[in-house]
Amino acid sequence: QDFDLATIYVSDAQYNRNIYFDTSPQAVRLYLLYNHWALKVLLYFFILVNLSLAIFEEPALVSLPTWATMLVELLCLLVFTIRLVHYAKVIPREKFWKDPKNICIIVVLLLTLIDMIIYGALKAANLYSVRWSRVLRPLLLINVTEGRQLRRAFRSIRNALPEVSSVFVLFIFSVLMFSLMALKLLSKRRGLKTIEGASYFTNYLEIVFDLYVLVTTANSPDVMMPAYNANSIFALFFILYILVNTYIFMSVFLAVVFNNYKKHLKEEIRQLVRAKRHKMARAFGVLQEQREEGGPPVVSHENWNKLVQQARPDISSAHRELLWRVCDDGNQGFIGKVAFVQLADLLNIEVITLKSRPHPLQSLIPSLYESKPSRLVCRVVQHRGFVITFDLIILVNAVFIGLDEENPLISNSEWVFLALYVLEILLKLYAFEPRAFFSKHSFWNWFDTIVVVAALIATIVNSALKSSGGYTSRQVLDIVFILRVLRLIRVVDSIKRFRAIINTLIRIGPAILTFGQLILVVYYVFAMVGMELFKNKVKFYEDITNPEKAYCGNPLLKGSTFAQLSYCKNNFNNVVSSFILLLELTVVNQWHLLGTGFATVTHKSALIFFVLFHVMVVIIIINIFVAFVLEAFFVEYSVGKGDLQTSLERKIEELELTVAQEKLEDNLVNAMETIDNDLGSGQSPTANLPSLLFKVASKRYRTVDALLQRMFEADLDPEDFAENDIPEDQAGNFENPTFGVA
Amino acid sequence: QDFDLATIYVSDAQYNRNIYFDTSPQAVRLYLLYNHWALKVLLYFFILVNLSLAIFEEPALVSLPTWATMLVELLCLLVFTIRLVHYAKVIPREKFWKDPKNICIIVVLLLTLIDMIIYGALKAANLYSVRWSRVLRPLLLINVTEGRQLRRAFRSIRNALPEVSSVFVLFIFSVLMFSLMALKLLSKRRGLKTIEGASYFTNYLEIVFDLYVLVTTANSPDVMMPAYNANSIFALFFILYILVNTYIFMSVFLAVVFNNYKKHLKEEIRQLVRAKRHKMARAFGVLQEQREEGGPPVVSHENWNKLVQQARPDISSAHRELLWRVCDDGNQGFIGKVAFVQLADLLNIEVITLKSRPHPLQSLIPSLYESKPSRLVCRVVQHRGFVITFDLIILVNAVFIGLDEENPLISNSEWVFLALYVLEILLKLYAFEPRAFFSKHSFWNWFDTIVVVAALIATIVNSALKSSGGYTSRQVLDIVFILRVLRLIRVVDSIKRFRAIINTLIRIGPAILTFGQLILVVYYVFAMVGMELFKNKVKFYEDITNPEKAYCGNPLLKGSTFAQLSYCKNNFNNVVSSFILLLELTVVNQWHLLGTGFATVTHKSALIFFVLFHVMVVIIIINIFVAFVLEAFFVEYSVGKGDLQTSLERKIEELELTVAQEKLEDNLVNAMETIDNDLGSGQSPTANLPSLLFKVASKRYRTVDALLQRMFEADLDPEDFAENDIPEDQAGNFENPTFGVA
Repeated sequence: QDFDLATIYVSDAQYNRNIYFDTSPQAVRLYLLYNHWALKVLLYFFILVNLSLAIFEEPALVSLPTWATMLVELLCLLVFTIRLVHYAKVIPREKFWKDPKNICIIVVLLLTLIDMIIYGALKAANLYSVRWSRVLRPLLLINVTEGRQLRRAFRSIRNALPEVSSVFVLFIFSVLMFSLMALKLLSKRRGLKTIEGASYFTNYLEIVFDLYVLVTTANSPDVMMPAYNANSIFALFFILYILVNTYIFMSVFLAVVFNNYKKHLKEEIRQLVRAKRHKMARAFGVLQEQREEGGPPVVSHENWNKLVQQARPDISSAHRELLWRVCDDGNQGFIGKVAFVQLADLLNIEVITLKSRPHPLQSLIPSLYESKPSRLVCRVVQHRGFVITFDLIILVNAVFIGLDEENPLISNSEWVFLALYVLEILLKLYAFEPRAFFSKHSFWNWFDTIVVVAALIATIVNSALKSSGGYTSRQVLDIVFILRVLRLIRVVDSIKRFRAIINTLIRIGPAILTFGQLILVVYYVFAMVGMELFKNKVKFYEDITNPEKAYCGNPLLKGSTFAQLSYCKNNFNNVVSSFILLLELTVVNQWHLLGTGFATVTHKSALIFFVLFHVMVVIIIINIFVAFVLEAFFVEYSVGKGDLQTSLERKIEELELTVAQEKLEDNLVNAMETIDNDLGSGQSPTANLPSLLFKVASKRYRTVDALLQRMFEADLDPEDFAENDIPEDQAGNFENPTFGVA
Repeated sequence: QDFDLATIYVSDAQYNRNIYFDTSPQAVRLYLLYNHWALKVLLYFFILVNLSLAIFEEPALVSLPTWATMLVELLCLLVFTIRLVHYAKVIPREKFWKDPKNICIIVVLLLTLIDMIIYGALKAANLYSVRWSRVLRPLLLINVTEGRQLRRAFRSIRNALPEVSSVFVLFIFSVLMFSLMALKLLSKRRGLKTIEGASYFTNYLEIVFDLYVLVTTANSPDVMMPAYNANSIFALFFILYILVNTYIFMSVFLAVVFNNYKKHLKEEIRQLVRAKRHKMARAFGVLQEQREEGGPPVVSHENWNKLVQQARPDISSAHRELLWRVCDDGNQGFIGKVAFVQLADLLNIEVITLKSRPHPLQSLIPSLYESKPSRLVCRVVQHRGFVITFDLIILVNAVFIGLDEENPLISNSEWVFLALYVLEILLKLYAFEPRAFFSKHSFWNWFDTIVVVAALIATIVNSALKSSGGYTSRQVLDIVFILRVLRLIRVVDSIKRFRAIINTLIRIGPAILTFGQLILVVYYVFAMVGMELFKNKVKFYEDITNPEKAYCGNPLLKGSTFAQLSYCKNNFNNVVSSFILLLELTVVNQWHLLGTGFATVTHKSALIFFVLFHVMVVIIIINIFVAFVLEAFFVEYSVGKGDLQTSLERKIEELELTVAQEKLEDNLVNAMETIDNDLGSGQSPTANLPSLLFKVASKRYRTVDALLQRMFEADLDPEDFAENDIPEDQAGNFENPTFGVA
């Protein structure tokens, strides 16, 4: 009973969950169930299904009858409702109704239901109707309990908004002033014409739009050329404009966004850490016992063991023992509050357990495996020259790939290369212990093997198809090509400097995924709105002979730049092409042509949609993304390991359970995480090495939250335990504020 | 004698000059002359003349005979030589020859001379010759003693290079891999065509170039369209490419540049501060005297006074007295080393002296000026409503400017607005003391008055011209229009939030000018090379009827996109259009079209020039610029005033010489620096206010170095006086390393 509660506190602290749940035994059991991974996966699966319905709804990529999509959507709604009811059972009633996240979900569910009924009714009556509730779908992704990271990303945007908007107003003021000047200097009295023969800079609103586009650099230098051709002095106007608006203001936007991001993130992380310690203190309160009269309360080894076992059933007992030794530094058999509170962070440090195992061949045929030639093979494989040789082979392979594969010599050479790669893997498997070679962290070994085996299969299939009927499947061939090129990537891993950069990128990868969700939400909303506004206005014809292809099936586009550049496939006719179009808008170049294209087929005010997208995505979200990458990089460069991590490592060293550093550094096979598969090969078995070794997985943290906490760890007071006894009702403050309907 | 030496030490410390000069009396006098502002201005004037010779040399904007430009250049060389000889007399001989800056200047001068002789000889023999030494000219700008800021900017680039280049190699590897994949997936077997009908993605090198251009986003989405039109699945390839190379890698470049910039800047500033303290300690050593037997050496008030008088003859004796009181906190009549060393920083803090003066009209006709209606006028002018009224008038004016000025009603309204603005200025001059109103720091008052008076004159001239002969000068009209629009800018100043942003921008302005010099150097070199490579390959014809205009006078460009977009004026035919072209390349958009245009008329390898420019300017210099702006912004946001500044303010307060804060804040007229012109109006003269008041000019520092020092002040140990006694020979270490021929 008590252990359930304590386990929940610990795992909430570990994963930074801030849910104020009911502590009655029944609610605790329900809460444990609520946090079960299977239910979460199920929830995300249904959110994904709900979002992907856009593929099948009108305008559809793959048409399905309306009743089918409606039925699936109803199912999704049902799942969300059940999940919400479950959540309502877990937390106290008044807390549930106070949380805007829950209100938001309920409102979204109700609105969706209403919309479905209206849509169904209108459809049945054959009237025009719009599924407007589709824009609300991404709100579910934000407001589910698990969407903490995403909510935080939205909060950083919201926090930056006041300051960004005041810079934005100033920026717009500057654009308007420059436009007014352009109107006065270049208006009709000059009689200038654009290359399309239209009048140049005569309409104020058009000038404002053109100059706004110039800020994004998308129409540079074209917008300047008529004036510049008329008189060189006008170039000065544009140079000044670009300097002020493109360079200075855009840098200021980045600076403001970055500064706000940093400031608020710091405050949030501080709160998170406070909440975590509070939860650990509660867990301590549940398990504490009085060792001696009047002494401080403590937790016994036995209870601690049971707790960790329940909180993290996946870690080995040896690992658990190691953690205990870190906590119980004095070997007393019990720990106090301060040591106990560390547990959540300790559990977040990834410790790799290495088992020293002999090579299976060594056990099977020891005489052969330990013979002189066999040892020589092992030594060759482990030599640096082996890696260099294969890097050279890869480079030669790259040249061969680049050459024309029609040549039989070259197409046959592919078999030679494949054979070499297979040989390489077999040799490595011979020299290294296979289970270590394919351990969880050996990214490059897995990558290599999968790519080579897949290439082998695909090449065989391809030549079988070819020899059987002279028929070459384009798909198979494409896969073969892709795999061939992918193989080359491995070269990067052999060069230390590159490895460092790539490891940094991989480490900030999970956090970038949060931005992926953010982009998904914004894109989804814009795609839904765009599809309603612009669907089927622009059509793409596969058939080259179709005369409508020249103007995208819309006579209004006849002779327009949009059609001339054959942008017809950039349309809002289904959700996939909408997303691709929005990506093109994010990349910025030619966005004004795409915008004016859609404005031509609808109305000039359609440009507002495109400008709004630019402001939202390019000025705000991309800047937040850059701010995030910059900050993460600085942290990677400047902050070392955390205190706890160091103490864990010290303990590992003390207990002589460490892996010899040099061996790890020299080993080139397992570059990705430099661990695991190192001791199994047993060329020179050091007799007195223990059979179990630990290693702290260098700088890799398990959760994004932990990375963020490390980012600001340096500024936090490690002894800030004052909040151990914050009043009950304040605990709710740790609930992350929501971003939804508000 | 001693005072000369001490003065030099102090002013060297103040301006962060690190010149290891000879301390013999003669050398000191020469050094004082060397640092005279007139000589520096003269030097920069001749550097400017030398650089601007490009306007008159072939290919010339304004043709001058060769002998004329050569003569001017010889004069410039002579000036530089004299300056160098002067410098050689000031510093010890061995120091002179050890300094790479001097060697670089000598080499440049010699090479230029040799080049001029060769060129003259070949020219006389009518042979083809190139003035290759022109690319060396900007090196003088870098290597003159005064080019410290510029050298530092180049050093930050050089310091970032190793890390940037390893990321760059990885980035290029990624581009090559993607290109190989594109070649395999999209090469001729698909039979795709670009919209120009050329074959699509068939040549490996062309693919590499196209994909490199895609990183700059300049050919997005055009480069993707043929593949996307053929099959939607190919969009995935390009999305992945953009994600990896445009977003991730470009952010990494910024992160690496920023990180290096920060790291090295910190170290340099630390060294600068050490050198400064060392110099101040030396100045102290020159002036010190023993007050009491065995006591610490001190500097008397008298000597100190004499020193400051010589170092800064422009500051008032009252100001000097204030500084003394800050140093001599205990009122002892002498100061120790620690207090003395502060002097350089104290002199850098801008203190504004306010004199409480009555309005001249008050002295002339007191009865009238102090009458009731007069007081009412003054109160009205000082009221917030007065400002708001004129802001509204400006907004109405903006609308009128936007309307068609052919309409007589609107063109006449201009007179009304002008009259209103003149009235506003006259009223303000009536209410405020004129000398205070036009004080040095009242930027907006000056701006306002100049713009209104200029507009008045230009409008009168314009209507005089019009009424006299019905002739309207376009130039005069343009000036009138520009002035009208400029007037509107004043609105920004009334809004507090905008004022804060603009003040920040103005404060980092001088440092941005250093980047202006940096850009000038890089542009100049590229312009010189570009002019030799591409001059007269592309021609622009003013005459519309000329048939050659359609293909820029070069048959090779017939039908090319370059000619179709009428980019003919973007050429290297003179230094001005070269600079404009390079700016267009910096803005990035369409740079590939400009590049391929010039490659068409010369050779494919010409693209190398354009790619090199992109890498140099966009990837490195612009990122350094962004890093600088970001860092400056963060400092502005986070760092308050320095310790010294605060102690100066405290002293001002202590002495009751402060200006009442509220009065300053409320005053809306003098917004720019919120000072000076505030107390002269004397509506409610407080009898016991002293007639002289001081105010520390908020956060404005006088030199760029000081701003940079403030940027890192927070991290420096304020008590780090250990280097007071660094050995003589180490002093040379503070010489900034040079960046030139090396």
